[in-house]
Amino acid sequence: MPEEVKTDVESISPYGPARSTVKGQPLSKDEIEKYNDFFKASLYLSLGMIYLRNNPLLKDPLKLEHCKARLLGHFGSAPGQIFTYMHFNRLIKKYDLDAYFVSGPGHGAPAVLSQAYLEGTYSEVYPEKSEDPEGMQKFFKYFSFPGGVGSHATPETPGSIHEGGELGYSISHAFGSVFDHPDLIALTMVGDGEAETGPLATSWHSTKFLNPITDGAVLPVLHLNGYKINNPTLLARISHKELEYLFLGYGWQPYFVEGDEVESMHQAMAATLEHCVLEIKKIQKQCRDSGKAKRPMWPMIVLRSPKGWTGPRKIDDNYLEGFWRAHQVPITDIHENPKHLELLEKWMRSYEPERLFPDGKILPELKALCPTGTRRMSANPVANGGAIKKPLRMPDFRDYAIKVDKSGVTWDASMRNMASFLRDVVANNMTNFRLFGPDETQSNKLDHVYEAGKKVWMGEYFEEDKDGGNLAPEGRVMEILSEHTCEGWLEGYVLSGRHGLLNSYEPFIHVIDSMVNQHCKWIEKCLEVEWRVKVASLNILLTAVVWRQDHNGFTHQDPGFLDVVANKSPEVVRIYLPPDGNCLLSVMDHCLRSTNYVNVVVADKQEHLQYLDMEHAIEHCTKGIGIWPQFSTDAGEEPDLVMAAAGDIPTHESLAAIDLLLQHFPELKIRFVNVVDLFKLISPVDHPHGLTDAEWTALFTVDKPVIFNFHSYPWLVHRLTYKRPGNQNLHVRGYKEKGNIDTPLELAIRNQTDRFSLAMDALDRMPHLHNRGATARQFLQNSQIKARNEAFENGIDPPFLKNWTWPHGNGLWKQTKNTVSQLTG
Amino acid sequence: MPEEVKTDVESISPYGPARSTVKGQPLSKDEIEKYNDFFKASLYLSLGMIYLRNNPLLKDPLKLEHCKARLLGHFGSAPGQIFTYMHFNRLIKKYDLDAYFVSGPGHGAPAVLSQAYLEGTYSEVYPEKSEDPEGMQKFFKYFSFPGGVGSHATPETPGSIHEGGELGYSISHAFGSVFDHPDLIALTMVGDGEAETGPLATSWHSTKFLNPITDGAVLPVLHLNGYKINNPTLLARISHKELEYLFLGYGWQPYFVEGDEVESMHQAMAATLEHCVLEIKKIQKQCRDSGKAKRPMWPMIVLRSPKGWTGPRKIDDNYLEGFWRAHQVPITDIHENPKHLELLEKWMRSYEPERLFPDGKILPELKALCPTGTRRMSANPVANGGAIKKPLRMPDFRDYAIKVDKSGVTWDASMRNMASFLRDVVANNMTNFRLFGPDETQSNKLDHVYEAGKKVWMGEYFEEDKDGGNLAPEGRVMEILSEHTCEGWLEGYVLSGRHGLLNSYEPFIHVIDSMVNQHCKWIEKCLEVEWRVKVASLNILLTAVVWRQDHNGFTHQDPGFLDVVANKSPEVVRIYLPPDGNCLLSVMDHCLRSTNYVNVVVADKQEHLQYLDMEHAIEHCTKGIGIWPQFSTDAGEEPDLVMAAAGDIPTHESLAAIDLLLQHFPELKIRFVNVVDLFKLISPVDHPHGLTDAEWTALFTVDKPVIFNFHSYPWLVHRLTYKRPGNQNLHVRGYKEKGNIDTPLELAIRNQTDRFSLAMDALDRMPHLHNRGATARQFLQNSQIKARNEAFENGIDPPFLKNWTWPHGNGLWKQTKNTVSQLTG
Repeated sequence: MPEEVKTDVESISPYGPARSTVKGQPLSKDEIEKYNDFFKASLYLSLGMIYLRNNPLLKDPLKLEHCKARLLGHFGSAPGQIFTYMHFNRLIKKYDLDAYFVSGPGHGAPAVLSQAYLEGTYSEVYPEKSEDPEGMQKFFKYFSFPGGVGSHATPETPGSIHEGGELGYSISHAFGSVFDHPDLIALTMVGDGEAETGPLATSWHSTKFLNPITDGAVLPVLHLNGYKINNPTLLARISHKELEYLFLGYGWQPYFVEGDEVESMHQAMAATLEHCVLEIKKIQKQCRDSGKAKRPMWPMIVLRSPKGWTGPRKIDDNYLEGFWRAHQVPITDIHENPKHLELLEKWMRSYEPERLFPDGKILPELKALCPTGTRRMSANPVANGGAIKKPLRMPDFRDYAIKVDKSGVTWDASMRNMASFLRDVVANNMTNFRLFGPDETQSNKLDHVYEAGKKVWMGEYFEEDKDGGNLAPEGRVMEILSEHTCEGWLEGYVLSGRHGLLNSYEPFIHVIDSMVNQHCKWIEKCLEVEWRVKVASLNILLTAVVWRQDHNGFTHQDPGFLDVVANKSPEVVRIYLPPDGNCLLSVMDHCLRSTNYVNVVVADKQEHLQYLDMEHAIEHCTKGIGIWPQFSTDAGEEPDLVMAAAGDIPTHESLAAIDLLLQHFPELKIRFVNVVDLFKLISPVDHPHGLTDAEWTALFTVDKPVIFNFHSYPWLVHRLTYKRPGNQNLHVRGYKEKGNIDTPLELAIRNQTDRFSLAMDALDRMPHLHNRGATARQFLQNSQIKARNEAFENGIDPPFLKNWTWPHGNGLWKQTKNTVSQLTG
Repeated sequence: MPEEVKTDVESISPYGPARSTVKGQPLSKDEIEKYNDFFKASLYLSLGMIYLRNNPLLKDPLKLEHCKARLLGHFGSAPGQIFTYMHFNRLIKKYDLDAYFVSGPGHGAPAVLSQAYLEGTYSEVYPEKSEDPEGMQKFFKYFSFPGGVGSHATPETPGSIHEGGELGYSISHAFGSVFDHPDLIALTMVGDGEAETGPLATSWHSTKFLNPITDGAVLPVLHLNGYKINNPTLLARISHKELEYLFLGYGWQPYFVEGDEVESMHQAMAATLEHCVLEIKKIQKQCRDSGKAKRPMWPMIVLRSPKGWTGPRKIDDNYLEGFWRAHQVPITDIHENPKHLELLEKWMRSYEPERLFPDGKILPELKALCPTGTRRMSANPVANGGAIKKPLRMPDFRDYAIKVDKSGVTWDASMRNMASFLRDVVANNMTNFRLFGPDETQSNKLDHVYEAGKKVWMGEYFEEDKDGGNLAPEGRVMEILSEHTCEGWLEGYVLSGRHGLLNSYEPFIHVIDSMVNQHCKWIEKCLEVEWRVKVASLNILLTAVVWRQDHNGFTHQDPGFLDVVANKSPEVVRIYLPPDGNCLLSVMDHCLRSTNYVNVVVADKQEHLQYLDMEHAIEHCTKGIGIWPQFSTDAGEEPDLVMAAAGDIPTHESLAAIDLLLQHFPELKIRFVNVVDLFKLISPVDHPHGLTDAEWTALFTVDKPVIFNFHSYPWLVHRLTYKRPGNQNLHVRGYKEKGNIDTPLELAIRNQTDRFSLAMDALDRMPHLHNRGATARQFLQNSQIKARNEAFENGIDPPFLKNWTWPHGNGLWKQTKNTVSQLTG
């Protein structure tokens, strides 16, 4: 139950002497002077990055030729962020804290870059940006400059795991990074702009999933600097009481630091940060000493300071400090208005660069305010997670193999079986791996995992929870009905050096399209940053696929996430569509061992026909694509027809279509090709997994009809194969938008991905069958209509369809290995 | 300042007699009996939908053959939703309220369908589902059944504008619907599952954008039924105090109704709803009488009742009522377990179907509890928005034409110019049109709009706001840094019969991929629902495009939204890439007048070259694609080369490439084709806008090289054109993932979409130029390197490139109209 906090802070103006919940004067006069100077030095660097390409210390009078031709960068949130960062440094030193900084405000890079430079980290990783005038000049010039670094905390920024391009994920990233890092504190600056986003608004609830014994702490500093690009922010314009209630309601104890009078603000911020650190330590000690994990009211800070704090209040008649005009480049027209160039110079000189950077290097007594070594937030190894990553202790996935003596005859629950493997991955890595999902882990048949690690839950417990609730304070599965929060936690967990998997319904994974895009961009960029060590892959397992969303209807039918992923850099994305249980095991093992990818695995959660024993599954998944001889009648010769499929349900229907064709034309030479690794389809020029054209032709021929049954929207296959020889013979079937409630097979019929449609499609491409083809086609169409009628009458597909298995035996299976390598090598 | 509400409600268990903030006994004993019966009748219908295909009134003992073979549907949230709906009906009748119901919980359809059926609306729109045993049997059978309706409040549901497939948008949809509908109340049930999503969590702030004078009211009922699919919900497991603080902090006054003892719950719910309605009326009266719009603490209700309320508490040893097992089909194994079939029958009979539905129709005295006509929430015309939609009063877009005497020579700010048109659309439609955007309207150069309607702001005001703040309580522009909320408001606004436009940065529109998907599915489905009248199109204007995100860097570079949109049904999606200012005007006019589409318009916000005067622009946009003779040298003959472009920046670079080629090869016959309407590229089989192959060939030839410069990822064009004759000659350039900070032209160079790369590409496809081609290529490459070096040195592109204009005159322009229709007709 939260205690009520009475504050004396009722004004919502950012001006005046400090008003704060926590009282105290922890700083001596001498310390205040030093922090003042340090603040000025940082602010100077921030302006320098935005404006200067030469004359870095203003040794000469400022002239236009010293300035960048194009002014870019954002000053608005830098002062508040710097202020927080530097005062936290005092506590890192005092209490030897293991901490790092998450900069939520999108364009906050000047704040964190200036700190990394002052702490010396920047010059360590980029020696040409040394701590001298030449280095400073380069440091300035290459900020938001062609060939340089961006105006966000991009991967080039030491100490950063959070870029803040698209906003809303600072809190969830921070929580992800402190899970299973019991000594870590993530000092997390939350912009009041990003605080308006949905993902951020719900991520405050993350405390209900944080165990004070086994996890570290997040110390959020909500920065009410009052404005976004051109608008006031919501949280800066509600009553003080509402703001306080809001955070109490979210389960946090808010402490306010408000004002713009620098000296008193130093004391207030120093005292408040220290109070919060001590609170965190007290909570942790209490829980750890007692062994009882509780959910306390965690401390957080509301810092209300003017946007562009310490800048000119007005320029001509327009407000600058404390207004949205301070958001980006604070004085924009220096190239046109000589008076404004003068004003800029005056402003910059007010930060006393020559005094604070004699010989271009920060004064030693100011440098001494920073921690050293890996205690510097810009050098904490947690923000270069690959460097501290431990490989997973993997069970042997072969031990979980599904027995398959006859291919295409037995049914098994591929996903439920894989869950046992996943359970043991959890059990072997109790502080190094977590499973994330939006309330769907059990629905996705992965609940075996709870045997090794339950669901983390720090809310209240009810009697009913004993009845399969699977909740515990020390669980390993993280479930909140927010794909954003799940993904944000997972990203934070992986980027700080651990491993994880997100499971989700396929249709709703679009909720996090933009997050996945941004993570792909992050890890793609990291490949170019020499000092960054590769992190574990971010693994996404999609179940409850489009083809079984029949009863949920149209809103649950969308397999288009693959299109979004396929647009990302081929260096970082992988897509797998395992057709059965053993392939799913092999693929999952591969994904969990891999680094620096976003792996997307699509596999349905229901019972399915099994095709490959473990030996064949490994071979097939290793190759990623191959002919399955047990369902082919071409016996190594040129086929009449190629049937191909990617995905478990498409594979099933394609094989049933082959059966239908063989019933009518036992002499047909049909080749069946299965695709596990989608990027095998693309040219090797465009993706490292791509087949050569020779390999492609060996599988698909150059002139025979190919009926390709695809899990997702059909155009993705066309897009991947547009350069392939013979691509005009490729006929792709997949999902198309049209909404009805259907049985699974009827859904397939409506999309022409069912066995009848596929077989008819094949017949249409083989005119040489003449009348026999037409007769067979008629028969197939009648069967299809019959099936459809039965579905509409009974609400389920006819058993003869639903229970179909491969009736022809497996021919050469297990005798030969008629696959790509033999055909081409 | 919120007053503190002291409640006596401290338990967070859903059981026991009613505990409520508002006291009162508004119902007589007789009324309670009637509401009890109405509740039972509704619950019976809900179970009937899930289980029965025959024997709808249980006249015969229940047997398996009466039951559906596959049991589908969700019972869990139905009781609480029904309870709320029916008690609100009393107030509709008492106060003659104009209200409708938004069902947030995803699978809440049994609740709303049962109410629509009891109110008679369902039988009116679907006469075969009549109010008699035969009709009821059909009503039951076709719930979540092939050929029937889904288990959400899909478009087939009368009274629904909110399906609840993907969760999180009930509040933003509700607010969208009450903006500019001053008398409307949206009674909005919020599931405690969806309340965990980010979009929902921030949408509570919508009150800061609602004007009590000109807008109606949203009355949210947060339904704490305690569980999601397999997990407890967050908000049901935090302390009572936290919950109260949370909503006070969000700016709402929460009233609690908690318990499961039906009789006392009737009184509590009736009293509380009435209190809230009176509060709403009081607030509105006060503001409207005084003419002063304020932001009050709007009332909301927290209803805590057990999931599956009134169902069996336990089945065998497992909890059902009040646990997640009640979420979906409450008893799943009736086909396997005869005892459970018996239990189901007993449970269903406890709702007394035979007494409550004599002759299959609800007792008249219970029917009398419902409002009549359009006062029935299921028949409120606002939920069939097309029926009340008024067309926009459109200014003549020709009046805003940019003067273009010479094509490709003058520069103008297309977006800023269009903003004047948009301003007058706003001015002409002050209660019928709104502009939405996440803090980017000014940045997107659309701020002229503020001259007609400022930004709605009901938060505190500061002195600085007078300095270009453009805030007002009665504004027409809606800005919150949440794409989710903007899109949700806009959807609600449009679906309830009005018009609107969302403007956003291109890269972050992926944030709402899933929302746009879902809206597309909604309007696509509506086309099949006979009684639904078409609504206005949902218009999305994307600016700050990928090609000008150079300085923002990699995270701001993603043009892939078009891929997501292109996957949706061709009946509802349209994509336009206007190349200049007059085309932008023409396209916007068309989009704003259209119905039932999602229109996506991509146009950059910076200054651009202008190509077409208004007459030509209208012609070009009407055709959607065409040859531009003023930049072509083929003079109606077969060209040597086709240069094509879609998008403003790609058009610019393609024309500059033509210039480069002509400098070296003045004799070359080059044809320039511009694409405005992207779906012109696709086969007419797949989209109604598609060119025939003959039209295609007349533009692109069958055998000449085509260098196609595209705004977005290049593969989208390949995907759209894979069926086209000669598609192997189509070379598409577009954005590819690789992150750096660059100047605009350098960004293009890196992606090979710049003039030099395009020209070199063209040369590579024309081997007949021999050595001359090689020499020119060398020259172009040197120029490219020179440009690149200059950009890296100075941070801006060289002026001779940046300021390039078309130097060759416009030839036949304005004399002939050498476009599709003439070529093919």
